[in-house]
Amino acid sequence: MKVTRRTFVQGLGITGGAGLAYGAMATLGLAPEITDGSARYRPPAMSDLLGKAAGKASVLVLGAGPAGLCSAYELGKAGYEVTVLEARQRPGGRVWSVRDGTVETDLDGETQTCAFGPGQYFDLGASRIPQGHITIDYCRELGVPLQAFGNQNANALVNYASDSALSRRSIQYRAAKADVYGYLSELLQKAAARGALDDVLSAADKEALSSFLRDFGDLSSDGRYVGSARRGHEPSPFAMSEVIRGGLGRDFSFEFGYDQAMTMLAPVGGMDRIYCAFQREIGTGRIRFGAEITSMTNTADGVRVEFGQEGRQQFVTADYCVCTLPPNLVVRLANNLPPDILAALRAARPVPAGKLGIEYSRRWWELDDRIFGGITYTDLDITQIMYPSDHFNEARGVIVGYYNTGRRQQSFESRSHRERLAKAIEAGTAIHGDKYGRDIVSSFSGSWRRTRHSEGAWVEWPGYRKLHEPVDRIYFAGDYLSNAVAWQHGAFTSAREVVTALHARIAAR
Amino acid sequence: MKVTRRTFVQGLGITGGAGLAYGAMATLGLAPEITDGSARYRPPAMSDLLGKAAGKASVLVLGAGPAGLCSAYELGKAGYEVTVLEARQRPGGRVWSVRDGTVETDLDGETQTCAFGPGQYFDLGASRIPQGHITIDYCRELGVPLQAFGNQNANALVNYASDSALSRRSIQYRAAKADVYGYLSELLQKAAARGALDDVLSAADKEALSSFLRDFGDLSSDGRYVGSARRGHEPSPFAMSEVIRGGLGRDFSFEFGYDQAMTMLAPVGGMDRIYCAFQREIGTGRIRFGAEITSMTNTADGVRVEFGQEGRQQFVTADYCVCTLPPNLVVRLANNLPPDILAALRAARPVPAGKLGIEYSRRWWELDDRIFGGITYTDLDITQIMYPSDHFNEARGVIVGYYNTGRRQQSFESRSHRERLAKAIEAGTAIHGDKYGRDIVSSFSGSWRRTRHSEGAWVEWPGYRKLHEPVDRIYFAGDYLSNAVAWQHGAFTSAREVVTALHARIAAR
Repeated sequence: MKVTRRTFVQGLGITGGAGLAYGAMATLGLAPEITDGSARYRPPAMSDLLGKAAGKASVLVLGAGPAGLCSAYELGKAGYEVTVLEARQRPGGRVWSVRDGTVETDLDGETQTCAFGPGQYFDLGASRIPQGHITIDYCRELGVPLQAFGNQNANALVNYASDSALSRRSIQYRAAKADVYGYLSELLQKAAARGALDDVLSAADKEALSSFLRDFGDLSSDGRYVGSARRGHEPSPFAMSEVIRGGLGRDFSFEFGYDQAMTMLAPVGGMDRIYCAFQREIGTGRIRFGAEITSMTNTADGVRVEFGQEGRQQFVTADYCVCTLPPNLVVRLANNLPPDILAALRAARPVPAGKLGIEYSRRWWELDDRIFGGITYTDLDITQIMYPSDHFNEARGVIVGYYNTGRRQQSFESRSHRERLAKAIEAGTAIHGDKYGRDIVSSFSGSWRRTRHSEGAWVEWPGYRKLHEPVDRIYFAGDYLSNAVAWQHGAFTSAREVVTALHARIAAR
Repeated sequence: MKVTRRTFVQGLGITGGAGLAYGAMATLGLAPEITDGSARYRPPAMSDLLGKAAGKASVLVLGAGPAGLCSAYELGKAGYEVTVLEARQRPGGRVWSVRDGTVETDLDGETQTCAFGPGQYFDLGASRIPQGHITIDYCRELGVPLQAFGNQNANALVNYASDSALSRRSIQYRAAKADVYGYLSELLQKAAARGALDDVLSAADKEALSSFLRDFGDLSSDGRYVGSARRGHEPSPFAMSEVIRGGLGRDFSFEFGYDQAMTMLAPVGGMDRIYCAFQREIGTGRIRFGAEITSMTNTADGVRVEFGQEGRQQFVTADYCVCTLPPNLVVRLANNLPPDILAALRAARPVPAGKLGIEYSRRWWELDDRIFGGITYTDLDITQIMYPSDHFNEARGVIVGYYNTGRRQQSFESRSHRERLAKAIEAGTAIHGDKYGRDIVSSFSGSWRRTRHSEGAWVEWPGYRKLHEPVDRIYFAGDYLSNAVAWQHGAFTSAREVVTALHARIAAR
């Protein structure tokens, strides 16, 4: 198995994948097996921790993101006295469904207010769920309705710079696929017929392969690719060398990824529906919003956490603490953590990622381009354009004008929203034409490194086994401690490990 | 461009595709261009025919399927006096959403009553809509909400007989794809490296191809396929010869088809929502259900149609008639059509196709197999198993236990429902294990050749230009007269051609 940078870049979850992180963690022995959600999890049961140590301990949960709310929910089911402290005024953390009324001031001081129409939204953080992830099971348990999320679309486009005549041309994904698969099949057919692979292919293998390639590549009876009805409007293919040198297939493998292959799913109405449901089940009274934590310390017989809320410094104590803040923010708290733990937390490097949503009063991508959901790929800085997977055929719609990471995201994150929008429209216009700049009603953008209380989309880090153990009475949980970094699944599995360990400890007292 | 039997079998719409039919029609000059919906249609506009000849003529429409209701709807918009005669007690024709309360007696006299739970259904006829089809535009105009239809799923299975060790094994689609693409890439990489393709590939081509293949096939640094995280649970691949000889990729091309590539769509709640909306817009009073037509004749100054309704023989006259009955049923009417027209209608051969829906009280395919929508492929007689694309995570669900055509359908159509169900469960059990036979609440099946008022799923025929012209005052419309046979799109485009021609004729009087 190889785990390459490419695998990483393509395995994007919230905005990223587990590839590199998994590779690193496997080396350290943290990852029990391959990045395979379905083999490891057990669907959550209402009775998981119930009735074993009810009410015998109090637990403070820091952060109301996926790891924090999952921890509080599971501990609450078991009857523990749980309090959640959350700096934001909303649950979800890096799950953030931006809609009418969303107001956010970033670390550079710019305030945006979202003015989307009724029901319109986009997920600035996690936006899709693979079938195998435990997130699906929490949606079932919490009664959060799911719908399909379009991670691929034959009518979407590819547009790349290359040394071929296809450079910077917008080409339907279906045409790119037909041509790449057609020429691939023709070439392999030819090589096999020439006997170039006779040392590895038997006569029977060759016959079976040939039969497959004729169908797979839509080859003519003489084994050539001369175009295909699969392409759509224009069955005639681009020239072979242009297709190969144009790199039209460079993003094909995205949709083969374990975490990205269809069927992908999403809650109806926005990913935050999951966390509103968690909040309802946990009890809103148990979650203190607007609590900015400043200190977290182990004491002789418990934990003490200080926080500012409504301009007043306060503190709270409990028997135990589950800390789900991002590692890059934990290290800023006043604390009495040992140096090796602090060093491990500091090794986590926050990754830049962000998105921009553009609301249009006319769904031109459906009306003119017949694109219903899915993703257009480009090597321009915007990286991709994502079309909405719901509200099909309605009047308004929100396109994700960019979703990018690393250097490409950095070209956006230091700019004002107005500049980001202008740059996104310029790229979108290069791909879709002038209509990309018309009928825009409103827009909203966010860069996770410049977003308060997160300051990163997820982390790249070498992994550290010791953070999987509690420091006295403080436990760490979060996607960064899982083998599904940047996925809600990772946050949930980490939280479940922690509450299971905590419960076992209390039960054994 | 090749149009093969395979293309035909794979391009299934209602239950079938336009491949062969298109090929034949193109030869006859009927098909203006390649099977490309999006290039040919113009979205319907409210004002299409309006105000040009309002109320100046009466039109009888025979049949309340897609062609009939589209005709009546467009003529009604223009103010014509329209009456629709329909033998069934429901609109939609071969669009048939089976749900609680559906009762049907087939031509063999067996009566089935559907007892699905609330909201549960399956589409025994047309079940999916490609993005490019005009059907989407009618949904927009009629206010019928759409959702994604899962035409592919990496967690679904393939199961085939072969001469390899993989014979009759249930293999996840994602594993089959990873192994086929992996070995394909390794083989082509090897052949190119050996110089076997140096006459067709430049050095730059080879370098670009190699870069693509490494990613596409998830190859190791030395160009070999040794497995992939894309496979899921078990990254280790099957042996190359087994994969090739096992024919694991034999159904891959289905999802590349112009009419089948994702995103596919379907109305929320069943395909019949479209025809209920048509009925509402046309006005229920203009549609006479239960009217079994027995005669259709051109008279000196109009048309006369006889029909039986509630045991009483009746007739109705009008200035014009749009006949949308299946050609195989038109020829049975008393009529005064000329011999060449009758010969053309008789040349249409009804195709066998059918489905069986199984309602379970437990969505085991989601709970146990993590399959949310999509299709499992097999060479068993059931051909495929289709998983529901909505009601995800709920209690009950309806699986399509078979959807097949030709010889495979014939192995079901002559049997009783009980026998069909038993045979479907036997095959499903071979693929999914014993759970396939458990938790079954109810079931329903239909074979279109044995279904009254249709007697075929769609037709194969050589095409006949003359049927595109009216016979005196009788016009023919239906998917069989389009280049999208078996698709609603075909019925709509045919209907729109006919009402446009009829309107022009009346306007020119």
